[in-house]
Amino acid sequence: MIQLNFSKSADGLLPAIVQEAETGRILMLAYINQQAFTETLVTGYAHYWSRSRQTLWQKGETSGHRQEIVEILVDCDEDTIVYVVRQQGGAACHKGYPSCFYRRVEDGALQVVEQRVFDPETVYKK
Amino acid sequence: MIQLNFSKSADGLLPAIVQEAETGRILMLAYINQQAFTETLVTGYAHYWSRSRQTLWQKGETSGHRQEIVEILVDCDEDTIVYVVRQQGGAACHKGYPSCFYRRVEDGALQVVEQRVFDPETVYKK
Repeated sequence: MIQLNFSKSADGLLPAIVQEAETGRILMLAYINQQAFTETLVTGYAHYWSRSRQTLWQKGETSGHRQEIVEILVDCDEDTIVYVVRQQGGAACHKGYPSCFYRRVEDGALQVVEQRVFDPETVYKK
Repeated sequence: MIQLNFSKSADGLLPAIVQEAETGRILMLAYINQQAFTETLVTGYAHYWSRSRQTLWQKGETSGHRQEIVEILVDCDEDTIVYVVRQQGGAACHKGYPSCFYRRVEDGALQVVEQRVFDPETVYKK
């Protein structure tokens, strides 16, 4: 049984960094509690705890862009993990980009460095 | 001027993921406040806010294992950043491993998957 150090953060949640297995690209960061971590281990798909909705959340449950777990890494302090995943649908970001980190700091401003894969308006219909 | 969303977290700190430029490997995660972010931009070396010591911290100030900034990426919600770095000394982890994520989940336990680069006892002398 793997014990993570949930008491390290002010809100009892730990960050999960998501890295694409094939490319090594960092796709996103989200938060986990014990329930989300357990669901991820049991199902083989990335689950998180939504801070805004205060609910368990399977990545891709609305968009279909699920994240199949390839491996899970744990850091020295057991307070951060990495999900290495196969990203379904080619996009992790709810704004339609492959990665949430689609902007780079350049000359004191943010420059977009990726191309959109989908239009969020059509994927997240009301 | 780049505005990050420091109000998104309970303690006013944001996670900074550190990725090695040459290998794409995720080295560590630490936290920043505005002061740490500004120092990083101004000096070109990664700075953080230490949650345990409650102080500004330049990575490598004790070990010499500084992190030279190659680029900085910002996520869609402006509440997480990536420092892409050249890691000096070949090791980011205070336990002597190249990456803090030197263990993998295997059969419900943690297996070490990296080799130590240095002995922490000799680097962090009292």
